[in-house]
Amino acid sequence: MVRIGILTVSDRASRGEYEDLGGPAIEEWLTRVITTDWVAERRIVPDGVDSVRQALLDLCDRAGADLVLTTGGTGPSPRDLTPEATSSVVGKDLPGFGELMRRVSLETVPTAILSRQIAGIRGKTLIINLPGKPGSIEVCLGAVFPAVPYCLDLIGAGRIETDEALVRSFRPRG
Amino acid sequence: MVRIGILTVSDRASRGEYEDLGGPAIEEWLTRVITTDWVAERRIVPDGVDSVRQALLDLCDRAGADLVLTTGGTGPSPRDLTPEATSSVVGKDLPGFGELMRRVSLETVPTAILSRQIAGIRGKTLIINLPGKPGSIEVCLGAVFPAVPYCLDLIGAGRIETDEALVRSFRPRG
Amino acid sequence: MVRIGILTVSDRASRGEYEDLGGPAIEEWLTRVITTDWVAERRIVPDGVDSVRQALLDLCDRAGADLVLTTGGTGPSPRDLTPEATSSVVGKDLPGFGELMRRVSLETVPTAILSRQIAGIRGKTLIINLPGKPGSIEVCLGAVFPAVPYCLDLIGAGRIETDEALVRSFRPRG
Repeated sequence: MVRIGILTVSDRASRGEYEDLGGPAIEEWLTRVITTDWVAERRIVPDGVDSVRQALLDLCDRAGADLVLTTGGTGPSPRDLTPEATSSVVGKDLPGFGELMRRVSLETVPTAILSRQIAGIRGKTLIINLPGKPGSIEVCLGAVFPAVPYCLDLIGAGRIETDEALVRSFRPRG
Repeated sequence: MVRIGILTVSDRASRGEYEDLGGPAIEEWLTRVITTDWVAERRIVPDGVDSVRQALLDLCDRAGADLVLTTGGTGPSPRDLTPEATSSVVGKDLPGFGELMRRVSLETVPTAILSRQIAGIRGKTLIINLPGKPGSIEVCLGAVFPAVPYCLDLIGAGRIETDEALVRSFRPRG
Repeated sequence: MVRIGILTVSDRASRGEYEDLGGPAIEEWLTRVITTDWVAERRIVPDGVDSVRQALLDLCDRAGADLVLTTGGTGPSPRDLTPEATSSVVGKDLPGFGELMRRVSLETVPTAILSRQIAGIRGKTLIINLPGKPGSIEVCLGAVFPAVPYCLDLIGAGRIETDEALVRSFRPRG
């Protein structure tokens, strides 16, 4: 069974002062798009390198997630430290994810260049930072997800398939 | 009062053998675009990690600049070390700035991929590397400046506003 | 005489279980495009940080290559470690190469964001990671090569000229 970690990073959401919108937006998007069986592992943690790092380690190493999607903490503010936490746990960077997410987001908002999102691989888990706002999450997921199923194949994670009418995931022949 | 550091990095300009064109081009552009009060802190230093690093520390930590724009030293030549010096003083990278500046510069010149410009944050200062040539400076500033005022807000730096007919700076509502 | 290292990185090709297609594709492309004298230094090594690192050091420091083009080992699979090996030998990164190669490759295949290709400079040698597949190699070389001759000039490597009908290499005047 494919496990997908959905990690909301937000001081206010983690204290219950603010409704978490990013995590549910990701789960709803995945539910629409992925046609094979999967289960969500949801977490909410405050901003910070340690809090995010511990949650990522838990999702990758203990829960055995195939894919982890984070939301929040990727901007330039002092408390935005999700990319630093992610960088500290991945063995390999995948710079193309951040480049493409910023490029497509720039088409709607010039402040997209302030996003410091990264992606990378820890063992058999692919980790992708997403923005905090539901609208931006959808734009970013739509841009990068066609490459996600094949990436999971390559790193030995579980197999997922997508509704081709929504996301045309691509696996080279052979 | 918002302070903007303008740092020219050039062996020849620092020895007076060559007229500094980049620094004045930046100052002239900012004077046209920014409609709120600001003051320039101009510096000229030779190429090199130490010389640029010391000038950046002086502008950020002693002069209290809200924004520092460098010009020069971002190419592949052995003496081009401005990105390394910048990287050594920032706490956070903002990879979207370099990506966008290279992308827009590529529309006019294929050697834009040789530019190693970065941007990042040191405390309450945003630092952006710009190219050396006045024409390229204008292209790069025009591309990234719409995101600069909001970035300064987020890091606790001073507030600037721009002439919307020249640069439509963007601040999300709320 | 300009020397160009062509380094194939592949477990199977290095054991002779698989015909090396990437190395010959690079050599054929260069033969068509470069109009000045040059000589190829071909190597095939298995995947891995040490194997690729030693081959790069040999090509740069002993063979005196002006340019080294690698093929293979840039994906997300556990054995894909060419970017890590390259990063360990270069003194300067040139992030614009990887950005542009991923961007142009994305026009044909959405999995182009999985490519972790980098480029950088070691002394007087420019090193560029290329993909493994001949078709993708051609797309990437066509995109970045216009900037290569001027980059070699700037780092003190040998001078090359290209057939302008195939690749319009660019050298700024002066």
